[in-house]
Amino acid sequence: MESGRLEAFSDGVFAVAITLLALNLAIGGPGPHQPTLAAKLADHWPAFAAYTVSFATVGIIWVNHHALFRNISEIDRTLLFVNLLLLFFVVSIPFATATIAAYLRAGTGDASLAAALYLGVLEGMSICFTLMFWWAIRHDHLKAALSARDARQATIRFGLGSLIYIAGIGIAFVSAPASLALVGLVAVYYIFEQTPVRPQASREQGGPGTAAGASPIRSGPDDNSGQGQG
Amino acid sequence: MESGRLEAFSDGVFAVAITLLALNLAIGGPGPHQPTLAAKLADHWPAFAAYTVSFATVGIIWVNHHALFRNISEIDRTLLFVNLLLLFFVVSIPFATATIAAYLRAGTGDASLAAALYLGVLEGMSICFTLMFWWAIRHDHLKAALSARDARQATIRFGLGSLIYIAGIGIAFVSAPASLALVGLVAVYYIFEQTPVRPQASREQGGPGTAAGASPIRSGPDDNSGQGQG
Amino acid sequence: MESGRLEAFSDGVFAVAITLLALNLAIGGPGPHQPTLAAKLADHWPAFAAYTVSFATVGIIWVNHHALFRNISEIDRTLLFVNLLLLFFVVSIPFATATIAAYLRAGTGDASLAAALYLGVLEGMSICFTLMFWWAIRHDHLKAALSARDARQATIRFGLGSLIYIAGIGIAFVSAPASLALVGLVAVYYIFEQTPVRPQASREQGGPGTAAGASPIRSGPDDNSGQGQG
Amino acid sequence: MESGRLEAFSDGVFAVAITLLALNLAIGGPGPHQPTLAAKLADHWPAFAAYTVSFATVGIIWVNHHALFRNISEIDRTLLFVNLLLLFFVVSIPFATATIAAYLRAGTGDASLAAALYLGVLEGMSICFTLMFWWAIRHDHLKAALSARDARQATIRFGLGSLIYIAGIGIAFVSAPASLALVGLVAVYYIFEQTPVRPQASREQGGPGTAAGASPIRSGPDDNSGQGQG
Repeated sequence: MESGRLEAFSDGVFAVAITLLALNLAIGGPGPHQPTLAAKLADHWPAFAAYTVSFATVGIIWVNHHALFRNISEIDRTLLFVNLLLLFFVVSIPFATATIAAYLRAGTGDASLAAALYLGVLEGMSICFTLMFWWAIRHDHLKAALSARDARQATIRFGLGSLIYIAGIGIAFVSAPASLALVGLVAVYYIFEQTPVRPQASREQGGPGTAAGASPIRSGPDDNSGQGQG
Repeated sequence: MESGRLEAFSDGVFAVAITLLALNLAIGGPGPHQPTLAAKLADHWPAFAAYTVSFATVGIIWVNHHALFRNISEIDRTLLFVNLLLLFFVVSIPFATATIAAYLRAGTGDASLAAALYLGVLEGMSICFTLMFWWAIRHDHLKAALSARDARQATIRFGLGSLIYIAGIGIAFVSAPASLALVGLVAVYYIFEQTPVRPQASREQGGPGTAAGASPIRSGPDDNSGQGQG
Repeated sequence: MESGRLEAFSDGVFAVAITLLALNLAIGGPGPHQPTLAAKLADHWPAFAAYTVSFATVGIIWVNHHALFRNISEIDRTLLFVNLLLLFFVVSIPFATATIAAYLRAGTGDASLAAALYLGVLEGMSICFTLMFWWAIRHDHLKAALSARDARQATIRFGLGSLIYIAGIGIAFVSAPASLALVGLVAVYYIFEQTPVRPQASREQGGPGTAAGASPIRSGPDDNSGQGQG
Repeated sequence: MESGRLEAFSDGVFAVAITLLALNLAIGGPGPHQPTLAAKLADHWPAFAAYTVSFATVGIIWVNHHALFRNISEIDRTLLFVNLLLLFFVVSIPFATATIAAYLRAGTGDASLAAALYLGVLEGMSICFTLMFWWAIRHDHLKAALSARDARQATIRFGLGSLIYIAGIGIAFVSAPASLALVGLVAVYYIFEQTPVRPQASREQGGPGTAAGASPIRSGPDDNSGQGQG
C-alpha cells in the first residue's frame, strides 16, 4: 500500500475523532429548576479542560503521523496493522476524554481510574508510534536514511511521550487533574519540539528551494542549517 | 508540510463539523401528551435558525480557507499550529450552536451568555484567520505577492469579520437574537464579497484560459478585469 | 476553485451524512419490562425503511454529483454557493429521515407533515442539482459540450427528480408511507438510468481505451455505442 | 468513474463508521447511587469486546477493499452499486455492534437474535465483496490478470469469510458470545493472510524496485518470491 493512501484514511479517522471530541461539551437546555448557564458552564470545566487537552493531543498526533509517513517509502504489512492499532487508540480518545471529564471530580478511586484509563489510551497510541518508527528504521523503509545520531534522537523524542504517559498513569493515582495537566504539557512540548524525521524534499517543490524544504515542518524561514542530507 | 495535506485534513474537519451541526435539529418522537409535530417544529425555530447561520458560516470558512491556502507556497510550523487553533474553534461551533439554540429564549442573562459564547467562538476562528493571513504576507509565503493596496484590502476584509464578531459580543448582551442575525449577515457579506487573495493560475488549467482563472473563485466569466498579476 | 477540491469536500460531507443516517437505527437496551428484541426490531421498521431509502438516495446524489462535476471545467462563484446549498440539504437528510421514521405511524397530520418535510428536503437538494446543471450548460462550463438533444435529455432526467419529489409532497398528505415508497422508487430509477452528462475521457486512462470510457459511468463493456463526442 | 474517486468516498465512509463505533463505549457519569467506575467498566465488557472486534473487522474491510480496487482498472455501473451496497452494510456495523453489545447477556433469544443480526450484517458485507471480486474477474476489469490458480485461491479466500459468517449465524443461536468470538477470529485470520489480488506496481514507485512492490501489501522485505507477474 502506498503511503498516501494510508495517510488519507488515517487523516479521515483523525478528523472525525477530533471533531467528535466536542460532542462531549454538550450541556443540557434551560429548565425550571436549573442553575444559570454561567453556573453550568463553570461546573462543566473538566469537560472543557479535557476537550482542549485531547484536541491538542490528537492535533499533534496528526502532525507527527504525517511527519513520520512522509519519510516512509513503503508500507509493509506490519506498518499497516500497527497503524490500524494506533487508530484504534485514537478512536478511543473521545470515549476516554468523556470518561475523565465526567469522573475528574468524583471520589478519588473513580477519578484516578478514569485518568489512568485516559493516560492508558494515550500510552497505547504512543507505543504504536514508537513501534512504527523503530520498524521503519530497522527495515530500511525511510526515504532519507537518518544518521545514527539522528535516529537515536528521534527515537528518544518519539519514546519520550510513552515514558511520560506511563509516569502519568502513576500520577493519576495521586491526582487525576495533575495527570490531565501532564498530558497538556506533553502537547505543548510537541508543539515546540519537532521530531527530526526528515523526508526528502517533495517533488512538487523541486528546484533551488528544496534544500530549505527538507524539514517536514519548518520552524521558520531561517532554521534550515544542518539539514543538508535531503 | 505541503499545503494540500493541511487542506485535506482541514477539509475533513470542516466536513464533519458542518454535518454534525444537524444533529442538534433532532426533535423527540410522538407521545401521548406531546404537542403536534407542527407545534414542535415551530417551537424549535431557534435550532433551525442557528443551524442555518452556522452552516453558512462554516461553509464560508471553508471557501476562504481554501482561497487563502491556495496562495500559500509553504506551510511553516506557525501556520500549521495557528491552523490547528482555527480548527479548534471550528470544532467548537456545533457545541456553541447547540447552546445558543437552546438558550436563545431563556432568561436574558442566559440568552446573552449563550450568544456571547457563540460569537466568541467565531471571534477566535476569525482571529486565527487574520493571523494566518498576516503571517503569510509578512513571511513571504504567498505564491503570488500581493500589491500593497491588495494586501491592505485583503487584511481589511479578513479583519472585518473579527471586528463585527467583537461588536456582536456586545450586541449579545442587548439582544441575543440580534447577535445571531448579525452572524447571518456576515455570512451573506462573505458570500457576495470575495477576499482578494489571488493565487497563481493552477497548473492543470494552464494555457490561454489561465489569466481568467487567476482569481481563486471567479464571480463570473467576465470579471477578470484588473487581475493581471497572476 | 478547481473541481477536484469542491468534490473532495462534498464527498466528505456525503460520507459523514450517509454514515450518520445509521445513528437513528439505535434501539434501547434490554430491561425488566421491555418487549423482546424481535418485537422491538419489528416495531422499529419505519427507521429501517427510512434508513434504506435515505442511504440509497444519498448514494445516488453522490454518484450524480460526481458525474456532473467531472464534466465541469471551472467552478465559478455561483456553482460554489449553489453546491453549498445542495450540501445544506444533504446535511439535513439525517434529521429529516429521523423525523419521518419517528412520525410515520403517528396521527395522520403529524405523519404527513413529517413526510412532507422529508420530501421537501429532497426537493431542495434536487432543485440545487438542476440549477447547477442548467448554470453549467448556460455559462459554458462543460468540458464536453452536449448536443442540444443530449442537453434536453439531461435536463429532463435531472429535473424529473424535482417533479416527482414535488408530487411526493402532495402524496404525503394522502399517505406518508406512500411518499416514502416513492422516494425509494426514484432511487431505484436513478440506479438503472444514468444521467447523460458525458465528460471527456480522463487523462489517466488515455490511449486506445478512452472512447469506451467517455461515459461517466459505464453500464458495461459493450454500451459505448453512440458516445462518440468524448 | 475512476477507481481513486470511489476509493476516496469509500474510505471516508470507513473512517466515519470506524470512529462512530466508539460512541457506543460511553458510560454514564458518577451519581449518588451508582456503582464505582471500575464496576461499571467491568460490567460494560460486552461493549469493549464488540468494539474491538468491529474495529478490527472494519479495518480489515478497508485493507481488503483497497487491495481489491487497486487492481481494478475500470469501475462499471455494477461495481459502483455493489460497492454502495457494501457501504450500506459497513454503515450498519455501528448499529449492529451496539445491539450485540447491549443484548449479549440478555435472555437467550434476544442475545442470539442480536448476534445473528450482527453476523448477518457482516455476511451482507462479505457477499458484496465476493460479488465485486467475481465480477471484476469475469468482466476482465483487473489490471493484472490472475492465473486460473490465483483466481481460484483469491475467490476461496474472499469467499471464506462469507461461509464462516453464515456458520456464525447458526452458532449465534447456540451461543451469542461464541459467534462474536468467531468474528474476532476471522479478523485475526485476515490480518495474517493476505488476499492474492496483485496489482501492477504503481507508477510512482517505478524503477528497479517495482518487482518487489508488486504485492498490494508486502508481508516483509523478503516475501516477494513467486510474484513475478507484476
